[in-house]
Amino acid sequence: MGESIYGLKRTHKCSELGLANVGESVTVMGWAHKRRDLGGVVFIDLRDRTGLLQVVFNSAVSNELFQKAETIRNEYVLAIVGEVVKRDPETVNPKIPTGEIEIAATELRILSKAETPPVYIEEDSDVNENVRLKYRYIDLRRPDMQRTIMLRHRVAKIARDYYDSNGFLEIETPMLTKSTPEGAREYIVPSRVQPGKFFVLPQSPQLFKQLLMVSGFDRYFQVVRCFRDEDLRADRQPEFTQIDIEMSFVDVEDVLTVNEGFIKKAFKEALGIELETPFIRMPYKEAMDRFGSDKPDIRFGLELVDLSHIVENCGFKVFSDAAKNGGSVRAINAKGCGAKFSRREIDSVVEFVKIYKAKGMAWIAVEENELKSAITKFLSQDEIDAILKETKAEPGDLICFIADKNSIVYDALGQLRLELARRLDLLKKDEFKFLWVTEFPLFEYDEEEKSWAAKHHPFTSPMDEDIEYLDSDLGKVRSKAYDIVLNGVEIGGGSIRIHIHELQQKLFKLIGLTEEQVSERFGFLLEAFKYGTPPHGGMAYGLDRLVMLMAGKSSIRDVIAFPKVQNSSCPMTNAPDTVEAKQLKELHIKMTNG
Amino acid sequence: MGESIYGLKRTHKCSELGLANVGESVTVMGWAHKRRDLGGVVFIDLRDRTGLLQVVFNSAVSNELFQKAETIRNEYVLAIVGEVVKRDPETVNPKIPTGEIEIAATELRILSKAETPPVYIEEDSDVNENVRLKYRYIDLRRPDMQRTIMLRHRVAKIARDYYDSNGFLEIETPMLTKSTPEGAREYIVPSRVQPGKFFVLPQSPQLFKQLLMVSGFDRYFQVVRCFRDEDLRADRQPEFTQIDIEMSFVDVEDVLTVNEGFIKKAFKEALGIELETPFIRMPYKEAMDRFGSDKPDIRFGLELVDLSHIVENCGFKVFSDAAKNGGSVRAINAKGCGAKFSRREIDSVVEFVKIYKAKGMAWIAVEENELKSAITKFLSQDEIDAILKETKAEPGDLICFIADKNSIVYDALGQLRLELARRLDLLKKDEFKFLWVTEFPLFEYDEEEKSWAAKHHPFTSPMDEDIEYLDSDLGKVRSKAYDIVLNGVEIGGGSIRIHIHELQQKLFKLIGLTEEQVSERFGFLLEAFKYGTPPHGGMAYGLDRLVMLMAGKSSIRDVIAFPKVQNSSCPMTNAPDTVEAKQLKELHIKMTNG
Repeated sequence: MGESIYGLKRTHKCSELGLANVGESVTVMGWAHKRRDLGGVVFIDLRDRTGLLQVVFNSAVSNELFQKAETIRNEYVLAIVGEVVKRDPETVNPKIPTGEIEIAATELRILSKAETPPVYIEEDSDVNENVRLKYRYIDLRRPDMQRTIMLRHRVAKIARDYYDSNGFLEIETPMLTKSTPEGAREYIVPSRVQPGKFFVLPQSPQLFKQLLMVSGFDRYFQVVRCFRDEDLRADRQPEFTQIDIEMSFVDVEDVLTVNEGFIKKAFKEALGIELETPFIRMPYKEAMDRFGSDKPDIRFGLELVDLSHIVENCGFKVFSDAAKNGGSVRAINAKGCGAKFSRREIDSVVEFVKIYKAKGMAWIAVEENELKSAITKFLSQDEIDAILKETKAEPGDLICFIADKNSIVYDALGQLRLELARRLDLLKKDEFKFLWVTEFPLFEYDEEEKSWAAKHHPFTSPMDEDIEYLDSDLGKVRSKAYDIVLNGVEIGGGSIRIHIHELQQKLFKLIGLTEEQVSERFGFLLEAFKYGTPPHGGMAYGLDRLVMLMAGKSSIRDVIAFPKVQNSSCPMTNAPDTVEAKQLKELHIKMTNG
Repeated sequence: MGESIYGLKRTHKCSELGLANVGESVTVMGWAHKRRDLGGVVFIDLRDRTGLLQVVFNSAVSNELFQKAETIRNEYVLAIVGEVVKRDPETVNPKIPTGEIEIAATELRILSKAETPPVYIEEDSDVNENVRLKYRYIDLRRPDMQRTIMLRHRVAKIARDYYDSNGFLEIETPMLTKSTPEGAREYIVPSRVQPGKFFVLPQSPQLFKQLLMVSGFDRYFQVVRCFRDEDLRADRQPEFTQIDIEMSFVDVEDVLTVNEGFIKKAFKEALGIELETPFIRMPYKEAMDRFGSDKPDIRFGLELVDLSHIVENCGFKVFSDAAKNGGSVRAINAKGCGAKFSRREIDSVVEFVKIYKAKGMAWIAVEENELKSAITKFLSQDEIDAILKETKAEPGDLICFIADKNSIVYDALGQLRLELARRLDLLKKDEFKFLWVTEFPLFEYDEEEKSWAAKHHPFTSPMDEDIEYLDSDLGKVRSKAYDIVLNGVEIGGGSIRIHIHELQQKLFKLIGLTEEQVSERFGFLLEAFKYGTPPHGGMAYGLDRLVMLMAGKSSIRDVIAFPKVQNSSCPMTNAPDTVEAKQLKELHIKMTNG
């Protein structure tokens, strides 16, 4: 059995010791990271959360202690009493902060033995992720996981400090509640007291935070767990954490300003990176036109150019048809790729855009004295000159064209832009480019349902300037919704809400909700709005994604202590699991087959 | 429809204005708390989170504005532009911080109208709690609810500041997980991906926080939602919030010291109250013997006195039987109650103890020259003298005796002690007396099952001094468990855990768990313990209860923004509710009858 620490008290963590402590008697505790034996001396690298510390057991000092030290294996947990000693110059280890000293041990307790761990304790393990997750408690010992979890703690703490000092109150909202307006699939929790009724785990505290504004709390925030029963992707988890915010008596710019202040503080304090604020504000339309995306990565250029006006009457029918029939012809000038890409590489680019439903991709490779292209023969010299001018083409460039309906043109070129950036190695991991995308359309047309739906949630306010179009042209109505985008990833978003009962009713009607549906789903919110509602708005960040990007990781599983895998299960605990028949009976639940 | 704030920007909150701002043009926004009309002038008390501010609409200045102001009703939401004006000395209102000024309005926007709210916005509403909870968003406007929710925010923030600055990392643990060791009834969440399997909502992060110690995070904390599907009492909710803590390489005293530091800081910063630390440490046995309770209220005396040794051979059979047969005879000297209580009041005390299964209560009323009692005739003068001496009885006192088996004696006298304190008005709301109760028994004997069970959870470590009794006398084994008690309420507790695999196995066996049960419930924890486990321990506070006591409230519903009522439902949202048949079908669930 392991020994007890009874009577011992840890005096220092490993990395708290240095030259200043030489001569002191100290008690340190941690894991045996590595053992080396060298002619009658055992060296242990003792590891704790703060780092490594060398401990020396010399047989010349105590043979008994030396022999006990010889039994130490990796990951044994030790308590060591000893004296801090300065190392000889030739044995100094400049790689660790405690490299100038070591501990000459006078007492050793083996607090716990250890079998050989299934995951080696090292930076960036290449062990299979399923093994890492099954033995997560070992995986979390690895230095990069330790740093990441500490970073996550730090970012959440900075959020709380920042919002608190800006007058926000953290108010907890229920987890056992009702449907929320996001509309994704929900987890439900059967009620025992009221059989046949169910609680819903919230997808967000949306309704509650709006009610808190009705209550006059003025500024609310919460770092809060949310739930979605969706099929998992790399950046989705059944439970995830939001930094959730709501403010009263504000318009769009107030929300953006206070929230970019948090991001600036988080990057400064957690990463030492000074971000410039205000971040760019970019209307949705501009983002689509320039980058083909409502979450543009603006670390690099390769912007879209609209050539529809040049080619709408040209001889190349693919172009002229698209330009005339409500679609467009747009291009990206892939700088230098004409010279750099082989014919096979260009073909692979053409294949790439097909993933995004583009029927094809025309291109012109610009050379010093000629243009290589299959389409120039259909274009007049004026048209060609105009294209080269608009795309600022120079010798060596590759102009890539997509002609189609706009949604496909944007999507294909937006993705192509990212693909080109990857191939050209333009995506710097340590560069952080934020922007706000604003003025999203309030509605989007559902082609299948032949009806208009709310693009964000149905509480989003239209822009004051566009309220008049509510009765005439829904496609024209912009909203007070906004997203915050970092390096092409949406890390948060929100909106100013509708605070006027009548306007809210009108919106519900426009998106086809019946009075009954509205009253069932949002009745208590609408009722609340009758008693004096301040103008309000807010947003929510995905904490997991934000920390993932800050830590330079590519999966949110790497920033969650105990994440779930593809089928929503936890390889460590084996959750979800069967329950006792008694439990189901109490809930009046029976499982059906198939 | 309400007006928009478009183009306006709030410059101040109500209570931010004072004499220093006289002459400034300001924009304020909030609720119309009250309107008074006085000869061509409308006065509005404008309310926001910070307090009240008087706004004046003078018909002599603008008749149009005056007329609009006359339409304002209570709880309308307003935006007001105006000038800060010093009030005439005779109209100064010393009751509010802004009482020396008022706003001479030059612009008024009615942002939202309001129907008459069902709960009046005032201190300590006497409206029926069900109405308050149905209209919680209105109820939360009341000043005492606003203060309480702000206090809760402050206490949670202080916890995070304190634990962070003491090296604790806040690490989020899963909500969709497996059974935890507390053993209360759990909420379960059906899995769609794996029909027939269920997640469990955690009763605590117990297993995860211990795993985080295995991972080497050294100090963990979390302010975390926990769940119990139990029948509700005044101080229970289906979901509640814990301040949850775990530390490595520590023994009992380390945990107590760091945690009472938090309490001290919270009372200082949130309430301005300076608590003396260290708090008293009182072994369980002492708490029971002196107060008849493992959560004694030490704001007052009325301690228990063990008289068994005096009466074990006395002529009063009830006493001598109890003292001889493993029970005891104990008394409380109810100071002054002999003189103060009528015979009827004494009888009601006798009735009171019967609630706690005492068969009766003997008593002696001590008068200047005689003793009034039905039992003195059975006692010798020596016995009576000894009783009076041990209970420090003086004329006017009432000595209350319970003779029974110990569990009943403790419970009845412990409760009697509290009842006497209530009757004697000894419970001061603004007095805060903390103590740690330590050295709880590790096991308790289950009379029905005729077996030993863990008194706390089965990971609790025995005291080093008592490990030897594990093989001989389980009743004698004290544990490293501790509770923190405030004014007779347990607000938290915890223990040093067992970190030795073999000792843990032994404990499981002693409490009758089969290997299969252990492996199914805690398999992954025991597996983890094989790879090097530090000695560790921790605790958890009930945040709701702590804030309730700090706020001087008597129900935790008053410190939770959106609480649930007796049948676990939410009167505001109507959760739990029915769900669509489609949802149940996706989960392969059918409801049964009855």
